[in-house]
Amino acid sequence: MTVIDIPADSLFGIDNLPYGVFSTENSPRRVGVRVADKVVDLAVALGDDVFAEPTLNPFMAQGKSRWDDVRARITTLVQGEIDDAAVLDVDAVAMHLPFDVADYVDFYASEHHATNLGKLFRPDSAPLMPNWKHLPVGYHGRSSTVVVSGTDIVRPCGQRKLAGDDAPTFGPSVRLDIEAEMGFVVGVPSTLGEPIAPDEFADHVFGAVIVNDWSARDIQAWEYVPLGPFLGKSFATSVSPWVVPLAALEAARVDTPTQDPQPLPYLRGEQKWGLDIDLAVEWNGDVVSRPPYAQMYWSPAQMLAHTTINGAASSTGDLFASGTISGTEKNTRGAFIELTWGGAEPATVAGEERTFLQDGDEVSISATAPAANGGRIGFGEVRARILPATQADR
Amino acid sequence: MTVIDIPADSLFGIDNLPYGVFSTENSPRRVGVRVADKVVDLAVALGDDVFAEPTLNPFMAQGKSRWDDVRARITTLVQGEIDDAAVLDVDAVAMHLPFDVADYVDFYASEHHATNLGKLFRPDSAPLMPNWKHLPVGYHGRSSTVVVSGTDIVRPCGQRKLAGDDAPTFGPSVRLDIEAEMGFVVGVPSTLGEPIAPDEFADHVFGAVIVNDWSARDIQAWEYVPLGPFLGKSFATSVSPWVVPLAALEAARVDTPTQDPQPLPYLRGEQKWGLDIDLAVEWNGDVVSRPPYAQMYWSPAQMLAHTTINGAASSTGDLFASGTISGTEKNTRGAFIELTWGGAEPATVAGEERTFLQDGDEVSISATAPAANGGRIGFGEVRARILPATQADR
Repeated sequence: MTVIDIPADSLFGIDNLPYGVFSTENSPRRVGVRVADKVVDLAVALGDDVFAEPTLNPFMAQGKSRWDDVRARITTLVQGEIDDAAVLDVDAVAMHLPFDVADYVDFYASEHHATNLGKLFRPDSAPLMPNWKHLPVGYHGRSSTVVVSGTDIVRPCGQRKLAGDDAPTFGPSVRLDIEAEMGFVVGVPSTLGEPIAPDEFADHVFGAVIVNDWSARDIQAWEYVPLGPFLGKSFATSVSPWVVPLAALEAARVDTPTQDPQPLPYLRGEQKWGLDIDLAVEWNGDVVSRPPYAQMYWSPAQMLAHTTINGAASSTGDLFASGTISGTEKNTRGAFIELTWGGAEPATVAGEERTFLQDGDEVSISATAPAANGGRIGFGEVRARILPATQADR
Repeated sequence: MTVIDIPADSLFGIDNLPYGVFSTENSPRRVGVRVADKVVDLAVALGDDVFAEPTLNPFMAQGKSRWDDVRARITTLVQGEIDDAAVLDVDAVAMHLPFDVADYVDFYASEHHATNLGKLFRPDSAPLMPNWKHLPVGYHGRSSTVVVSGTDIVRPCGQRKLAGDDAPTFGPSVRLDIEAEMGFVVGVPSTLGEPIAPDEFADHVFGAVIVNDWSARDIQAWEYVPLGPFLGKSFATSVSPWVVPLAALEAARVDTPTQDPQPLPYLRGEQKWGLDIDLAVEWNGDVVSRPPYAQMYWSPAQMLAHTTINGAASSTGDLFASGTISGTEKNTRGAFIELTWGGAEPATVAGEERTFLQDGDEVSISATAPAANGGRIGFGEVRARILPATQADR
């Protein structure tokens, strides 16, 4: 039997207990929970076959009372002796995409990000569109290209119209960027025609991950009118491997910034679903930004309410992300296009000058939040390396 | 044993042989092929378990040589005697969504539609955006709300800013519209990082369906800047139940209209994938429009090549639709917003004046194409009725 050593300052203490999908050389994909630097194999430890599934979807679909019950059992389990066969070193397992993604929606919920991008993409107009403070603007992304942290990102090729050119050309993106976001995963589906109210958020949403919504700004800028981003985003979206359950985020719940004008009634709730999550963006080992989720204008509960208000159903495995998290200060901006002001103000990164991503660059986004016990919990990280384009000769 | 009577002018003769998923009171969902007014139960007739699956996805994933082989076997089968147990009246079965939808993408490939919408949505600018003739503009839609013909459509509610109002209000859409489109279904997936060239279209795409991309124009007009349509579209997309295999469309293949400027090399192919498909839009029993697919500027092969050129993978079950099919003439426009010019020029429909859809209205879109034998093949229809909004009090 094993007793897991949980240091008092661990970001993966008993107040966290995030779920992920792992495999080893000897065993296929299955569900584990992270505790300190260990992964507990839940199918073995709890004797429950839902955790022998290769994704979290079947467990997520079981609903909040099951989630609460399992969390209580795990909390007891990891503070006692555990079967040796159920405890693995986190460095000895491979992590996988933790859930099958149903529909993927990306929002645009940071006022500072939307304002910055408006100034950069549409310098001759008001930066915020008239709708922005009335509804959480969002769009559907590509579900099949959501990948787990550690997956290399191949620089995408596509059409872009470079400054001074009369016509678009084809080639590798020259303005490859990140977007530091948080993502929310739906467990309990809703029925076609039955909107989810903001205060029903915790009955449907299972947990949260860190998202890096890779963006080819040159491709995006050329293609996005009038139907929105498509190939500038669809080549890859990375997520962190550990899904932090909503129950672990109780101490992080805060009010959103004041919303003026007051949103329409369907976007109002009694519950606080602003989240005091601190992100850090590391570029080739240097922390270049610390985006504050607490400054996001729209809450994830409002995002889900908006998504379903027209009667659209939500499914187990739906992923919706916040959009780039940018604060008021320059060093809190969650995208390099903002940090370097469209490339006009290069950043010094690990001793080199950078505007957008170069081949071989590595980006890691991490996040932490207050824990119930006064310490902090961690989301881990979403990390990836940029590989050279492979289709440049098309 | 049964011999199916196939009238010479049947739209479901041996040159067509579309696949669908049906059930009866006594048997669960399974794959059938339509022949004249009969459905042949393929699991029974061919003794192949892939047709006992509740969706076409497993069969579609088997690839083109299997599709060709099965089509040849069915062609022989339906011209001879068939086991009685394998032959059902089409009126005696329930039809279901024929495939699990992976990613859903909607294009905007009709020059006439894009021009009309540009004039209506952005009266003060050039109707076509600068990118339009360089790439097939498209965006991701909501996969989970793709429904089969016959499913009632509940009028969506949402935010819209009505003429003369200072702020948006919430309520049922007052400009509910259709979009008559063709949709293409991917069978053989592609790998992340490996684009599909235009001339590889038939190795990946299994077949085609009729699509009605319901659109709440008031919700769409308010929300769509800058990230594209979201709730104005995501409440429902209807598809016809019979997937016509590409092999049945050989006689319909034509050149697209001249593309000027010439597209970039990755969008060029040797093969013709314009399609001479004639649609008919019936509104409360009156045919109000006959959209000609042959006038579409971008081919479906170009749409798929564009979707994957950035390295994005395509999956079995991916659905991509053409966007509204509108011809040059008023009576060939595939959306009511065009047909009634934003409501300014009402149409007379079954003796009543109409602009947008009213509760209780019924719309059916049908389509036919030339058959190899000189006759025609049919896609059947996608039909639905509009029910009153149910969430107007939110």
